[in-house]
Amino acid sequence: MSGIWGKNLELSLFGESHGDAIGITINGLTPGLEIDMDKVLVEMARRAPGSSELTTPRKEKDLPEILSGFLDGKTTGAPLTAIIRNTNTRSKDYSLLKDVMRPGQADYPGRMRYKGHNDHRGSGHFSGRITAPIVFAGAICKQWLEQKGVTIGSHIQSIGAIEDERFSDQTEVTLEQVEAFKNEQLPLFNEEKKQAIHDLIIEAKDEGDSVGGVVETFVLGIPAGYGNPFFDSVESTLAHLVFSVPAIKGIEFGTGFDITKLKGSEANDEYYYDENNEIKTRSNNNGGIIGGITYGMPIVFRSAVKPPASIKKKQQTINIKEGKNAELEVEGRHDPCIVPRVLPVLEAVTAIGLTDLMLGGS
Amino acid sequence: MSGIWGKNLELSLFGESHGDAIGITINGLTPGLEIDMDKVLVEMARRAPGSSELTTPRKEKDLPEILSGFLDGKTTGAPLTAIIRNTNTRSKDYSLLKDVMRPGQADYPGRMRYKGHNDHRGSGHFSGRITAPIVFAGAICKQWLEQKGVTIGSHIQSIGAIEDERFSDQTEVTLEQVEAFKNEQLPLFNEEKKQAIHDLIIEAKDEGDSVGGVVETFVLGIPAGYGNPFFDSVESTLAHLVFSVPAIKGIEFGTGFDITKLKGSEANDEYYYDENNEIKTRSNNNGGIIGGITYGMPIVFRSAVKPPASIKKKQQTINIKEGKNAELEVEGRHDPCIVPRVLPVLEAVTAIGLTDLMLGGS
Amino acid sequence: MSGIWGKNLELSLFGESHGDAIGITINGLTPGLEIDMDKVLVEMARRAPGSSELTTPRKEKDLPEILSGFLDGKTTGAPLTAIIRNTNTRSKDYSLLKDVMRPGQADYPGRMRYKGHNDHRGSGHFSGRITAPIVFAGAICKQWLEQKGVTIGSHIQSIGAIEDERFSDQTEVTLEQVEAFKNEQLPLFNEEKKQAIHDLIIEAKDEGDSVGGVVETFVLGIPAGYGNPFFDSVESTLAHLVFSVPAIKGIEFGTGFDITKLKGSEANDEYYYDENNEIKTRSNNNGGIIGGITYGMPIVFRSAVKPPASIKKKQQTINIKEGKNAELEVEGRHDPCIVPRVLPVLEAVTAIGLTDLMLGGS
Amino acid sequence: MSGIWGKNLELSLFGESHGDAIGITINGLTPGLEIDMDKVLVEMARRAPGSSELTTPRKEKDLPEILSGFLDGKTTGAPLTAIIRNTNTRSKDYSLLKDVMRPGQADYPGRMRYKGHNDHRGSGHFSGRITAPIVFAGAICKQWLEQKGVTIGSHIQSIGAIEDERFSDQTEVTLEQVEAFKNEQLPLFNEEKKQAIHDLIIEAKDEGDSVGGVVETFVLGIPAGYGNPFFDSVESTLAHLVFSVPAIKGIEFGTGFDITKLKGSEANDEYYYDENNEIKTRSNNNGGIIGGITYGMPIVFRSAVKPPASIKKKQQTINIKEGKNAELEVEGRHDPCIVPRVLPVLEAVTAIGLTDLMLGGS
Repeated sequence: MSGIWGKNLELSLFGESHGDAIGITINGLTPGLEIDMDKVLVEMARRAPGSSELTTPRKEKDLPEILSGFLDGKTTGAPLTAIIRNTNTRSKDYSLLKDVMRPGQADYPGRMRYKGHNDHRGSGHFSGRITAPIVFAGAICKQWLEQKGVTIGSHIQSIGAIEDERFSDQTEVTLEQVEAFKNEQLPLFNEEKKQAIHDLIIEAKDEGDSVGGVVETFVLGIPAGYGNPFFDSVESTLAHLVFSVPAIKGIEFGTGFDITKLKGSEANDEYYYDENNEIKTRSNNNGGIIGGITYGMPIVFRSAVKPPASIKKKQQTINIKEGKNAELEVEGRHDPCIVPRVLPVLEAVTAIGLTDLMLGGS
Repeated sequence: MSGIWGKNLELSLFGESHGDAIGITINGLTPGLEIDMDKVLVEMARRAPGSSELTTPRKEKDLPEILSGFLDGKTTGAPLTAIIRNTNTRSKDYSLLKDVMRPGQADYPGRMRYKGHNDHRGSGHFSGRITAPIVFAGAICKQWLEQKGVTIGSHIQSIGAIEDERFSDQTEVTLEQVEAFKNEQLPLFNEEKKQAIHDLIIEAKDEGDSVGGVVETFVLGIPAGYGNPFFDSVESTLAHLVFSVPAIKGIEFGTGFDITKLKGSEANDEYYYDENNEIKTRSNNNGGIIGGITYGMPIVFRSAVKPPASIKKKQQTINIKEGKNAELEVEGRHDPCIVPRVLPVLEAVTAIGLTDLMLGGS
Repeated sequence: MSGIWGKNLELSLFGESHGDAIGITINGLTPGLEIDMDKVLVEMARRAPGSSELTTPRKEKDLPEILSGFLDGKTTGAPLTAIIRNTNTRSKDYSLLKDVMRPGQADYPGRMRYKGHNDHRGSGHFSGRITAPIVFAGAICKQWLEQKGVTIGSHIQSIGAIEDERFSDQTEVTLEQVEAFKNEQLPLFNEEKKQAIHDLIIEAKDEGDSVGGVVETFVLGIPAGYGNPFFDSVESTLAHLVFSVPAIKGIEFGTGFDITKLKGSEANDEYYYDENNEIKTRSNNNGGIIGGITYGMPIVFRSAVKPPASIKKKQQTINIKEGKNAELEVEGRHDPCIVPRVLPVLEAVTAIGLTDLMLGGS
Repeated sequence: MSGIWGKNLELSLFGESHGDAIGITINGLTPGLEIDMDKVLVEMARRAPGSSELTTPRKEKDLPEILSGFLDGKTTGAPLTAIIRNTNTRSKDYSLLKDVMRPGQADYPGRMRYKGHNDHRGSGHFSGRITAPIVFAGAICKQWLEQKGVTIGSHIQSIGAIEDERFSDQTEVTLEQVEAFKNEQLPLFNEEKKQAIHDLIIEAKDEGDSVGGVVETFVLGIPAGYGNPFFDSVESTLAHLVFSVPAIKGIEFGTGFDITKLKGSEANDEYYYDENNEIKTRSNNNGGIIGGITYGMPIVFRSAVKPPASIKKKQQTINIKEGKNAELEVEGRHDPCIVPRVLPVLEAVTAIGLTDLMLGGS
């Protein structure tokens, strides 16, 4: 029941979708860190709903209000808390849903966990909206990481069965490319796939249905020697955070599940000294991490995002108060595909995880 | 650099492959828990090397010695520590490898992390051997879980490209089946695949190479209402622990990456009351977990195990002391495939994670 | 740099004296706990400034605004966050003090810790004002404890050299007595000392000086078997929290430092079965705790509160920017004695500590 | 029920007095730290029983065996575990005591906490013997601190009513003095008190009784800027650890409880630049800590050690199995005074606490 995470950087997350406010407290930030608030707002806008026809029309400004730990544009070193008011909450939409358990949503498990006391309005504390403060925290961590030369980017690896190229297929990914992806609704290495993906999402929307996809996240400029063996491995840390994001059902690093089809002699990433006498590997099947620790190549991982559970289509379920099977048709605002909005969230948790690990030293 | 994990159940792991001993301390066990030590040894034997031609010939008894927290066959409630002596350590095998970085192993990242002070002999603290104490701890947790009606099993999902059926394809998996799998070198739902898998492993062995695979782990009898939203979700907890196991590069829950190819209306697991008036879902695409919390259906996940990095084949790499590229041919004992030995480790971490979550209450 | 505390109950504290708001997030509260907000406000009013001529005239309503985790008068089980706006902040009072280090205050150590980036206005994050959210959290824990039959009270043990009787000298302390103490500016077992204490405080105020004192806190109704040996002993837990309160310089349990003057045969608290066949001890020199665990007698401890460092009298110090010795005379609002306001803070941290320990089970 | 402590330095403590072994795992030590094992053994010998007529005749070599994390005289960076075998355990001494609750000991609270499953032999996990591994860990931390110029010392402040001078009364305490104290059975600033203290202890021993005392611990060379406001203050951290030591009932920093009798103008420690342009304070009433953070003056605190509960004298108590009052006379080995043996334990926890805080940075 805890909203607290972290060792060197400690987060405390709170809020419910239709409560007064959602927010986060960040502990452990270096004192005197200058924060460019415009960059923070860019990240938050990437996640915010209502930015295009591909997402839910619920519109909120989602402007964070910083309450503490920040003075004259810099962190003070004390806990930094930001809140976001919930303003556009149409609670009546949800009032009938208290006892009818929506399939694929946290209604039933949440009710069992909290003995029926959880705020059920708009999924309450389980709402994807609670990722907004995570993006805020991640945006600050990104600025700390940038000072260390570390940059995080991501693209859509697939929507439904339509696949983009992989990061590992690119000869080089520049910082400009990473920056450009932020302005794209559908950031793809292969832009020719864009129209098909767009059409697939609109089609699902028109059917009152939804589609999922895969996000590929990558980290450039991460030096060798960060992370730990066993419990605090880089993979453990990032996977822990990635699975905190609602709707994620899988994660794989480097070549991932496909590495199981390689021989050891193919899978091993051979080291060499490059022309600048820097240590590199010829392949990156391990996605930048071996033994839980970085080896100086980009970190790469892919996360499976399930199709949004909120759909208009009629579904079979139960009415738990009546103890009977029931039918369900939910009107209201729905995202036909949340993959584009999940990208900045996954970048944010990556930034958070790496900041925690890097504060722990190499 | 911490070997500590857990909130309600806290583990402290220690040891190096060629040091005096490896071990683990378990905090938070219910006082008065009777432990059947034979069952513990069965789990440890499943992980131990040397049990068949499929694994490394390094033979160790791996008998745990309990130092504290255990009296007259029961836990006392105080920290329970067990150690395993390292007896069959041929350090000379490894003495030449100090400066030549083996591809796919933790030699280089470990050296960067610990400034060259880490024990490099036999991978030191990074050795897969350190999972033996984890299996010990997991075996105790399994006995606690059994008292709650919770059983953990697993089978080989694939070796290389050869795939077994999935858990979700079975009409029912009985406790007898789970028990029988423990005695199998290659536990499979579809036994017809056994010979092909066996041959694939032997072929890799003969080539001085190695193969990987996928393990599917499942949890029967887990009630609804355990786990947490966000940071301490069931997926976060299990993934954190699973990625603590060396050689794991991916994890997916339920339908996993394939769920991204379904529509929301297909992916949502519809609830119904069964003939005993119990709440069930018709499908289990979410693998027993929604919103980070169990909903009473089996937990199911698959983990990608990379092919062992230790191979006999010649490889290109670097000599970091000389600052030059180098060639490497490693003689010695190698596992052509560690998947069968990883099964009990993944069951163990699953038991550990669920014990921690269940001690936290529902 | 972390504002996070706790294992089973986890707090996250934030805020600076002259920032936008101060607040706290409470994790781990039982879902469905009904909270009487009037009782919470009573506790907060006890700590608030401006309530009598004995304290600082700075008046703030200090009304907590609950942002999350609370619905229809009950906890939801999700993190509960409350904030208190800073409204009556006269920042100009403090602007000259940035470089002149006030003796006895956190100016200099804080500046060293945070490299000069900490918010120095009104002591910033070091302000005693930050205890207001702690009192809020403690007030909620008190209500949970009351359901378990546990009550926390306190009185002024001494101001300067004027001493009240001890808890251990009373034949019985009733719940009515505990309640009545809450309405007293100067709660004392021996009311005859009240006038002398009042006069001592007013005298210090008139001199532009301040006085300290000792608070005795006691816990009624705590059952045997809570707490832990070594690191999470009841004493460790409570002392950790008590020393989190600014101005505390000592703590002693039971007979405390005086127990060192007793023989073992005098100090040992002998057990007996009372007329109701309950296990009691004839004395309570150990203050309700042995081996870090409660034994069913009241917990009793005394805390030393230093005289407030903020005084009007001229003091010698340094100007750290100029690198020179300097003189200091601080105008503004000062508390001549904070002991009465510290009582509810110490009760609050006691409630928080015991809730954490009791949630951990016996 | 957890034996785990720490944030940056994490300890895991285990063992029971009459089990196979006791021990500790230390996480977070800097890799490559050279450890002088002779110095470690000196610290352990200071705590060990049987060294003079003043202590229990139980003799054990208490030699630590390092199992992991240590290679060629240096830390590897991996968890460092050491165990101490229990060899001289005369369990029969304790067999009759299972149901008769010894006053002042953890028998009854421990039995309630662990539902009767705790190892009761020789106090089991509650035994003072479990502090031996703490001294081991502290001795290593001391060597790390010495590299930073930080030295920890202590003396007997009082035994019964006989008092030594205070640290604050000394014009200077040299490193030689600190070292010399280690070789003293009764380290005192005023050596003239030694005979009287010796006689008091022997007298108690002859009576089958015991005496307590106060230990004063001091830290030289600690720079300004370590520690944190609120929950992780230096006082919170040290008090938490000090109250983990069995028999401690009070702690006070600087002038401690006596500061409550000073006016603010007397209590405030005024800053000045000394002849080397270093920032000092003229007094040190705050014991080196304000706002939870060091200010560059020595840390000073006193801890109250109760008289040992194990005495020969006849005592009244209960037989919990029979549910009746009972009489108790305990034969066996008893310490008439443990203060001399507690000194190195308190130095050890001070070293542990400061290492944790200093690893957290300033």
